[in-house]
Amino acid sequence: MDAEIIAIGSELLTPYRQDTNSLYLTEQLNQLGVEVTFKDVVGDKLEHLKQVVQTALGRADIIMLMGGLGPTEDDLTREAVSAALEAPLVRDPQQVEALQKRFAQRGLPMSDNNLKQADVIAGATVLPNRNGSAPGQWIAGTYDGREKTLLLLPGPPHELQPLFEEQCLERLRMRLPPQFIATRQLKVAMMPESQCDARIAPIYAKYPLVQTTILAHGGEIQIHLRSRAASAQAAQQRVDQLAEEIEEELDDAIFSRQGESLEQIVGYYLQMRSATLAVAESCTGGLIGERLTSVSGSSRYFAGGALVYSNEMKTKLAEVPKKLIQEHGAVSAEVALAMAEGIRKRCGATWGLAVTGIAGPTGGTPEKPVGLVYHAVSNGEASDVVERRFPGDRERVRRWASQQALDLLRRKLM
Amino acid sequence: MDAEIIAIGSELLTPYRQDTNSLYLTEQLNQLGVEVTFKDVVGDKLEHLKQVVQTALGRADIIMLMGGLGPTEDDLTREAVSAALEAPLVRDPQQVEALQKRFAQRGLPMSDNNLKQADVIAGATVLPNRNGSAPGQWIAGTYDGREKTLLLLPGPPHELQPLFEEQCLERLRMRLPPQFIATRQLKVAMMPESQCDARIAPIYAKYPLVQTTILAHGGEIQIHLRSRAASAQAAQQRVDQLAEEIEEELDDAIFSRQGESLEQIVGYYLQMRSATLAVAESCTGGLIGERLTSVSGSSRYFAGGALVYSNEMKTKLAEVPKKLIQEHGAVSAEVALAMAEGIRKRCGATWGLAVTGIAGPTGGTPEKPVGLVYHAVSNGEASDVVERRFPGDRERVRRWASQQALDLLRRKLM
Repeated sequence: MDAEIIAIGSELLTPYRQDTNSLYLTEQLNQLGVEVTFKDVVGDKLEHLKQVVQTALGRADIIMLMGGLGPTEDDLTREAVSAALEAPLVRDPQQVEALQKRFAQRGLPMSDNNLKQADVIAGATVLPNRNGSAPGQWIAGTYDGREKTLLLLPGPPHELQPLFEEQCLERLRMRLPPQFIATRQLKVAMMPESQCDARIAPIYAKYPLVQTTILAHGGEIQIHLRSRAASAQAAQQRVDQLAEEIEEELDDAIFSRQGESLEQIVGYYLQMRSATLAVAESCTGGLIGERLTSVSGSSRYFAGGALVYSNEMKTKLAEVPKKLIQEHGAVSAEVALAMAEGIRKRCGATWGLAVTGIAGPTGGTPEKPVGLVYHAVSNGEASDVVERRFPGDRERVRRWASQQALDLLRRKLM
Repeated sequence: MDAEIIAIGSELLTPYRQDTNSLYLTEQLNQLGVEVTFKDVVGDKLEHLKQVVQTALGRADIIMLMGGLGPTEDDLTREAVSAALEAPLVRDPQQVEALQKRFAQRGLPMSDNNLKQADVIAGATVLPNRNGSAPGQWIAGTYDGREKTLLLLPGPPHELQPLFEEQCLERLRMRLPPQFIATRQLKVAMMPESQCDARIAPIYAKYPLVQTTILAHGGEIQIHLRSRAASAQAAQQRVDQLAEEIEEELDDAIFSRQGESLEQIVGYYLQMRSATLAVAESCTGGLIGERLTSVSGSSRYFAGGALVYSNEMKTKLAEVPKKLIQEHGAVSAEVALAMAEGIRKRCGATWGLAVTGIAGPTGGTPEKPVGLVYHAVSNGEASDVVERRFPGDRERVRRWASQQALDLLRRKLM
């Protein structure tokens, strides 16, 4: 079964806004064993919309339309589908009543425009929308002799997602042949994508029935495995077997086996050891703290930290001896180690983690170029420092530095 | 003139990856006076691709195809366009030579596959790609009696963007009627979108020739103005006049008039006053520091800061008296003010900025619910504190809190 996803709205044809619903819907459809073969974005023009729906009817089994269900003149999805299917729009008295009730409850006057939202395509099932005024519609029938399913869904994600899960998922499942999909996700830190692929390609090539997708971003590689089979067990076994072989090959470069983030994994390890962490950040300026504290419950292991952009602050807040900075420079292995140990002591934490470097675009020298970053970790007894030269712009250098620092700590905690 | 943008690649039909090139290309096309009327995503299937190109030929003047130009069997854009236009593919000896040279320079063997990249659609102009092996192609001609322009562009953004700017922009401009586009962007902090729109809708409604787009995200509203006219002056005058009226209405809620970020604006103000800033962050955990230091050159005004998640750290690093925390609780106006003043003194900065709150999802109480955040600023003489209750999840609360803190400082600096 193939699906086509159509995002509707002129704002999605500007440089400022992008459809994101289709990623969510693709994930949901894939889980049902349905592949997405086309995605379209079309503006609020009846003729354009009708044409896109007609094209989709000619090539997809399931057609998901998102947006254009509101009360304004620009909301034309109902009209376009009605025209494409040559099925009339009928004003549903139950829906009119529901709208009147909704407005009355809020003490708002209802303009005539709003009645449009009670128009239903003949033969469609209305899908009530508990987070907005525009209901969805479900149409299942034959078109040109083939079974087609059309879903009209509201555009805002907080309306679309619950409506889809509560009212469309089961309906779709019942129309589809029973299928079982198993997925796994492995994550790898600080490895070049080409190197990762070269190492695992001979492995996943042996599993043609598992779809392997490799994505790299900001010092992190995600390996997505997906398999479809007639039984849940068969599908699961296949992805698990491939995952195991990949884990054996990549070993401790893999930091996550269930999709957890690196900051979550570091948090798990710290909690497991009843340990706490303090950070001293120079060029990352708060990014490492921000990532660690983005995890709910991080107060159990995150003690605190210091943002030490200047030499003076490195001394004042992270207890780095002035002399050390004068001798080696602020961007040096020695200062990174002193920062990690200094902040650890200052915060009374088990571990100290520190980063000092040159994020650019200015501030580089021939000896210490932009992208040079030192990452250090210490627990008072053992310590470690990693030097890296990251290519790319300020944002990229900072992102990679935060990733390297967290991965350094992870390896120490393992 | 209307354009259609076609993104090619099966990976763009998975839940993991999204076309972003089309936002860039839309911006470029809009600047030339061209509107984008359709966007499509299609996988690496010849039949699908050919069909999409044919549909586009029937409805758009300019067709931009991105991706599918590589050397693998999945790269079928050349073949599909050739089939749709009924124009043969010709292997270009110059391109073969260029490929051979490229591989020799890198000391790599060239497989026969790579020769595909030297195939040119009859009549097309080759667009050399200095950042990759796949050149682009430019096709201009009549199709079914109408003038059409097709661009075949490589998929990776770092190849596509320079290739487009260096080799397509002028060619396109020469094919288009002379047009002038003027744009302006205003940004507003910490105002509900509906309130902003209610205040400015009566103003922009008077300017039907200016396209006004309002976007809201994370405590920030962007107002995009765009106008097209026969002279640069006329277009500029129109957007400037509307911008002026909006500025008058929204007054100091507008923090940016040229698209600058809030952290950039705060930086400008601090530099203008030769002032420095220190931050103490509890629930934002580094986000404010991260935003401030994302600006290159921020070391000139960002002194440093402390991440003070626990009560102990608030006392140790930000000099908040223990008694104050015991009396009022860590999430209180009193502690926020003491944090701002404490970190200011500790870092020897002109200004101190502090945030303390409950980001959730746990940790809330009936008196101090999730989302309650205190933001404080102090320069030793004057100080101010703002209490807010933000709805939404942990990420949203933290984002809004960082925005409120920076906006509070901005207003003090104005």
